[in-house]
Amino acid sequence: MKAKTPEQSKTTLTDLVLPSETNPLNNLFGGELLARMDRAASIAARRHSRRIVVTASVNHVAFNRAVPLGSVVTVEAKVSRAFNTSMEIFIDVWIEDRESGEKTKANEAIYTFVAVDETGRPVQVPEVTPETKIEIQRFNAALRRKQLSLLLAGKIKPNDATELKALFD
Amino acid sequence: MKAKTPEQSKTTLTDLVLPSETNPLNNLFGGELLARMDRAASIAARRHSRRIVVTASVNHVAFNRAVPLGSVVTVEAKVSRAFNTSMEIFIDVWIEDRESGEKTKANEAIYTFVAVDETGRPVQVPEVTPETKIEIQRFNAALRRKQLSLLLAGKIKPNDATELKALFD
Amino acid sequence: MKAKTPEQSKTTLTDLVLPSETNPLNNLFGGELLARMDRAASIAARRHSRRIVVTASVNHVAFNRAVPLGSVVTVEAKVSRAFNTSMEIFIDVWIEDRESGEKTKANEAIYTFVAVDETGRPVQVPEVTPETKIEIQRFNAALRRKQLSLLLAGKIKPNDATELKALFD
Amino acid sequence: MKAKTPEQSKTTLTDLVLPSETNPLNNLFGGELLARMDRAASIAARRHSRRIVVTASVNHVAFNRAVPLGSVVTVEAKVSRAFNTSMEIFIDVWIEDRESGEKTKANEAIYTFVAVDETGRPVQVPEVTPETKIEIQRFNAALRRKQLSLLLAGKIKPNDATELKALFD
Amino acid sequence: MKAKTPEQSKTTLTDLVLPSETNPLNNLFGGELLARMDRAASIAARRHSRRIVVTASVNHVAFNRAVPLGSVVTVEAKVSRAFNTSMEIFIDVWIEDRESGEKTKANEAIYTFVAVDETGRPVQVPEVTPETKIEIQRFNAALRRKQLSLLLAGKIKPNDATELKALFD
Amino acid sequence: MKAKTPEQSKTTLTDLVLPSETNPLNNLFGGELLARMDRAASIAARRHSRRIVVTASVNHVAFNRAVPLGSVVTVEAKVSRAFNTSMEIFIDVWIEDRESGEKTKANEAIYTFVAVDETGRPVQVPEVTPETKIEIQRFNAALRRKQLSLLLAGKIKPNDATELKALFD
Repeated sequence: MKAKTPEQSKTTLTDLVLPSETNPLNNLFGGELLARMDRAASIAARRHSRRIVVTASVNHVAFNRAVPLGSVVTVEAKVSRAFNTSMEIFIDVWIEDRESGEKTKANEAIYTFVAVDETGRPVQVPEVTPETKIEIQRFNAALRRKQLSLLLAGKIKPNDATELKALFD
Repeated sequence: MKAKTPEQSKTTLTDLVLPSETNPLNNLFGGELLARMDRAASIAARRHSRRIVVTASVNHVAFNRAVPLGSVVTVEAKVSRAFNTSMEIFIDVWIEDRESGEKTKANEAIYTFVAVDETGRPVQVPEVTPETKIEIQRFNAALRRKQLSLLLAGKIKPNDATELKALFD
Repeated sequence: MKAKTPEQSKTTLTDLVLPSETNPLNNLFGGELLARMDRAASIAARRHSRRIVVTASVNHVAFNRAVPLGSVVTVEAKVSRAFNTSMEIFIDVWIEDRESGEKTKANEAIYTFVAVDETGRPVQVPEVTPETKIEIQRFNAALRRKQLSLLLAGKIKPNDATELKALFD
Repeated sequence: MKAKTPEQSKTTLTDLVLPSETNPLNNLFGGELLARMDRAASIAARRHSRRIVVTASVNHVAFNRAVPLGSVVTVEAKVSRAFNTSMEIFIDVWIEDRESGEKTKANEAIYTFVAVDETGRPVQVPEVTPETKIEIQRFNAALRRKQLSLLLAGKIKPNDATELKALFD
Repeated sequence: MKAKTPEQSKTTLTDLVLPSETNPLNNLFGGELLARMDRAASIAARRHSRRIVVTASVNHVAFNRAVPLGSVVTVEAKVSRAFNTSMEIFIDVWIEDRESGEKTKANEAIYTFVAVDETGRPVQVPEVTPETKIEIQRFNAALRRKQLSLLLAGKIKPNDATELKALFD
Repeated sequence: MKAKTPEQSKTTLTDLVLPSETNPLNNLFGGELLARMDRAASIAARRHSRRIVVTASVNHVAFNRAVPLGSVVTVEAKVSRAFNTSMEIFIDVWIEDRESGEKTKANEAIYTFVAVDETGRPVQVPEVTPETKIEIQRFNAALRRKQLSLLLAGKIKPNDATELKALFD
């Protein structure tokens, strides 16, 4: 199974914020953005693995900027690292000013997907070969996040979370 | 501003998994569940604060069990702790077997909401007084999660995340 | 087949009024509320019968209060009486004031569902044992409503609608 | 204010049953049909009154026939009688066999709408002049239904429901 | 296979413009109108052919008039001509003024559908016998449009588009 | 007003075919694809003009390939030419095989948008400077299409459609 670059799974979903997706302040509902990011991430995971994929977890997502009604929102997803049958997907969200055309980073999120066969059983996926500086950074941080996730789920002990523990030394 | 119990913000959203919400394995899309949890959590946050509320962040969410088409899904949200203008909401998700009526825990998630006024500026919310054993556990863990979130966002240094650091000692 | 209480089928669907569900006066469309009540009622019928259930009829529904955009609406459904293969479901709808938290009764509706097997053929359901005063009242009124429904459908003659006829004596 | 015929408010909504609108037996959800009937009825009420209209009540609706996925469904609504500021709308629902083209009556429903001004206050609507035999029948029965509705709502006493009482003599 | 008149396939879809279907100027999205026209046209094609039908092409559609939020929109579709396994459907769109009741033509569109069997293979459809003056006009123009469509797709040469070529002589 | 290249307005909308968007053959509804293309085209038009834009017309769209449920569909829109206040947008649609990753061209469409100010009045847009061979081809063909569109709308006479007439000489 040949390794792939993050660029090979890159998925761009540019769409409008429709009136049915807004909260009382006329901004995009957090829940709607979570759903869009899930769709884009699932396509990236599918492009990396060429398999059926299912959402395994959502890591910390911060909603730093409100996304107003009528905005053009770009959700860009890339597989940042693979662990046997699972893939970490990094998602960047931008909004674009209609008049200046300037793009502003609105959010960042990390989802994990698992590749499965037709019966739902996990299957092996290709490894990831990061290329750019930021891809390499994200690739390295992915292990730390994985340990954190196992730790929070009580599946490993604090002292086995070596990458994480190192932060506090 | 009088403190409130988690029970006072408890919000139950029981609904079906509709055909338009399923993936190729005929299970509920992760993104759809994230959106439902966001709506239930926003109501709990509103009940606690009696204010307009907006999603600030989503903590780690694990999708442990697939939720098949036609399932009855119950999303239950309660405010677990308040920090000045923000609220941590704990969400439990159950699915229910049609024949036996047995309820199975499908997921658990933690969202953070901020209370705002009509102009979108953060406003103070009441404190939380946990009552049951699990509510007290979640209340205590909330501080650790807050430090983790600040740490991941680069807003505090590892050594200032005292609660978190204690885990590794 | 063991009788069940209305409490055992109680279903709570608390959700927001979204912008896509409102009429030109910015209130929830009657049709949308009818659809939500149908979903909650179908879950209650399913919880009572542990079977596939289909809507058989909707009794008189009065829309006494408009439900404004952004409201929190709670739809609560309970099986009020069973007749062989059909179940009468009583639905109460409340809206909640954001500032005071006060709940106001907005609507009341009665739906009838039939339990069916996988081929769509009606099957027997458990009886209902009402417990509270209001549950007993609704249980008793259900027979009168059933006769009215049969009468309006031309399936019984006015003089056979004994419960109903008694009203006018 | 000139009286109008039911034909003048006749509204036809022919549409498909889409996959997102079906229950586990692959038939149209009762709640979806209720929502479509509400939209068609609201247009008929608007055509009769030339006003903003809001759903006031739904009378007994029987779901006699399942409506399978992919069906062509025709909802036809006509104002059957007006009472000062309210209008009774009679709705007939047909489904159509794809191969033979034969139309079968699937349902019948009666909704009541109220005409309001921009502030939501009820306003006078034109009277109805029924023309065909069935329109005359429905016009006459409307008074009986109105009394029934007032009676069920506890707004009149059984002995004042003169039209209804006559049925049992 | 007996020829049919356009009247026999006539399909009327009268519905409201809902808040979730509008653009920043509060008018119906072009894309939403295209989707409604597709549904009405597919029903007309089905009524003509009594077969499964799929969209083959959309001819020139001009959006001459904005359709504001809350409008009553009537989409009327009729098969204008059949070519072996395909059908041209002519669609007229009107909007209706709430106060005067006056209907204004908003759009006109032409869709082509193909009739297929359960495996997706094209099957023969009945011919069309136009009756009214406008139906005859549209029937005659259909051949010209077909040649134009083949020409634009590069499937015939300009000089074989006899009907079209005649326009320029 | 500085001219822009088609690349500067390029908009990519990659998304899944969801169960609620499919016809009885389990393929994407033509109408749904028309709506997605409209959204992508409107974003491209907005990126070119930095203005509010409204759909003016849809040119010939051929649905050459069915798009099955679960497919990954990429809609790519670029402004191909501008005429004073209107923009022609060329849209390419691909579907992607899950196993091989191979992309197949599914459709091609041309939409026209008009840029307007807040009152809906048309405003001037920048010119287009095509760069690649295919962009130049499409730029040149745009004038022919504009004449065809004016001709079909009866706004110019056949002999004034010089570009079009030349085809038949």
